[in-house]
Amino acid sequence: MPQTRHTERHFTAGETVRDIVIGMSDGLTVPFALAAGLTGAINRAGIIVTAGLAEIAAGSIAMGLGGYLAAKSDAEHYAKEREREKREVKEIPEEEMREVAQVFHSYGLTYAESAPVVEALARHPQKWVDFMMRFELGLEKPDPKRALISALTIALSYVAGGLIPLAPYIVATYARRFSIISALLSSVGLTLIALLVFGFVKGRFTGTRPLRSALQTALIGSLAAGAAFLIARAIS
Amino acid sequence: MPQTRHTERHFTAGETVRDIVIGMSDGLTVPFALAAGLTGAINRAGIIVTAGLAEIAAGSIAMGLGGYLAAKSDAEHYAKEREREKREVKEIPEEEMREVAQVFHSYGLTYAESAPVVEALARHPQKWVDFMMRFELGLEKPDPKRALISALTIALSYVAGGLIPLAPYIVATYARRFSIISALLSSVGLTLIALLVFGFVKGRFTGTRPLRSALQTALIGSLAAGAAFLIARAIS
Repeated sequence: MPQTRHTERHFTAGETVRDIVIGMSDGLTVPFALAAGLTGAINRAGIIVTAGLAEIAAGSIAMGLGGYLAAKSDAEHYAKEREREKREVKEIPEEEMREVAQVFHSYGLTYAESAPVVEALARHPQKWVDFMMRFELGLEKPDPKRALISALTIALSYVAGGLIPLAPYIVATYARRFSIISALLSSVGLTLIALLVFGFVKGRFTGTRPLRSALQTALIGSLAAGAAFLIARAIS
Repeated sequence: MPQTRHTERHFTAGETVRDIVIGMSDGLTVPFALAAGLTGAINRAGIIVTAGLAEIAAGSIAMGLGGYLAAKSDAEHYAKEREREKREVKEIPEEEMREVAQVFHSYGLTYAESAPVVEALARHPQKWVDFMMRFELGLEKPDPKRALISALTIALSYVAGGLIPLAPYIVATYARRFSIISALLSSVGLTLIALLVFGFVKGRFTGTRPLRSALQTALIGSLAAGAAFLIARAIS
C-alpha cells in the first residue's frame, strides 16, 4: 500500500471550513436562544433585535479576539519552551538523553534498545529539540499566520450565524402584520434547519458521524433556547 | 538533576481550576457586554436582567453541553483510530514498521539508526499501538471521566461569572433610587475588577504572564461591551 494513500485515510479537516462551521453553529445557538427566551418575556420585536445584535457584537468579539490572543499566547509558550529545550540540549545533554530514553522506556523499550536512536538524535541538535517538543512535552508547532485568519473567520461566521435566528424578528419590526409569535415560530424553524445543516457539515469536518452531529447540534440549540425561554418567562 | 524536579518545571495547570477560570471569564464577558449594550438602548433594568439571565442560561448550556459532546466525540474518535491502528499492526505489520521508521526519519535519523527501535516496538504490539497513536497521529488519550466534570464546571462558572455584571441591574429593579446609569457604572467597575482578577489567575494557569493576561481579559470584555453598546445605541 503506498504511503500517501495511507496518510489520507486519517485526513479530517480543511481548517477554514472548520472555522466557518464552528463560528456559525455557535453563532446560531446563543443569539437564537436569547431571542426565543426574550419572546417569552417581552412582546416587542425591536427590543429583541437590539438585544440580539448586541449579543452578536459581544459574542463575535469575545470569540474572535479571545481565540486570537489565546493562539498568540500558545505560540509564545511554544517559543519559550523551545528556547528552554535548546538550552538544555546544549548545557545538560546527558540529562536530555536520559529523558529521550525515558520516553522510549514508557513504550516498553529497554535502555539498550533505544540507545542507538538516543545517540543518533544527539548528533542532530536541531531535530533533537523538535523531537523533545513533540514527544516529551506534547507540543505542536503553532502556525503564526493561522491565528489572525482563524479569529476573523470565526468572528464573521458567528455574525452570519447569529443573523439567521434574528432575521424573522427584523422582519417583524418592519412588517406590522408579521406578529412576534410568527417571528418566534419562523426563527425556530429557520434555526433548526440551519443547526441541522451546520451540525451535519461540522460532523464531516470533525470526524463525528454527520447525522449524529446534526442531531446533537440541533439538540444543544434547542435545550439552550428552551432554558432561556423558561427562565425569561419565569422572571418577567 | 532529579527527573521529578525537571518534569515539574513544565507543569502548568490544575484542570478544574482552569475550567473554573475559563468558564467564569467567558461568563463575565458576554453577559457584561449584553447588559452594557442594552443600557445604551433601553431604560428599563427589568428587561436588561431578563435578557442577561436568558443569555446566561443559553450561554452556559451551549458552552457546557457543547464541550461535553465534543469531548465525547473526541473519545470515540480516539477509540476508532486506536482500533484501526491495532488492526493494522496485526494485519500489515511491515507497513506499520515502515511508518515508524518514517517518523524517526523526519527527525533526521537514518533507517539503519532507527531499525533497533522499530524492531523492539514490533515485539510489544500493545505499546506499539500507543506509540502510533501519539507519534504518528498526534492523538492524546482522552480521559472519559473528565468530560462530564469539565462540562459542569465550565457551565456553573459561566453562570457565576455572568451574575457579577448583572448584580447591579438586579439591585436596580428593586431599589428605585438606584438608577440605570448607576447600575451601568457599577456593573462596568465590578466587571472590570473581576476580569482583571480572573485574567490574572487564568494567566497563571495557562502559562501567559499573569499581568498581561489580566489586561488582555479586561480588554476583550471592554471591546465586546463597547461594540455592543454602540450597536444597540445606533439601532434603537
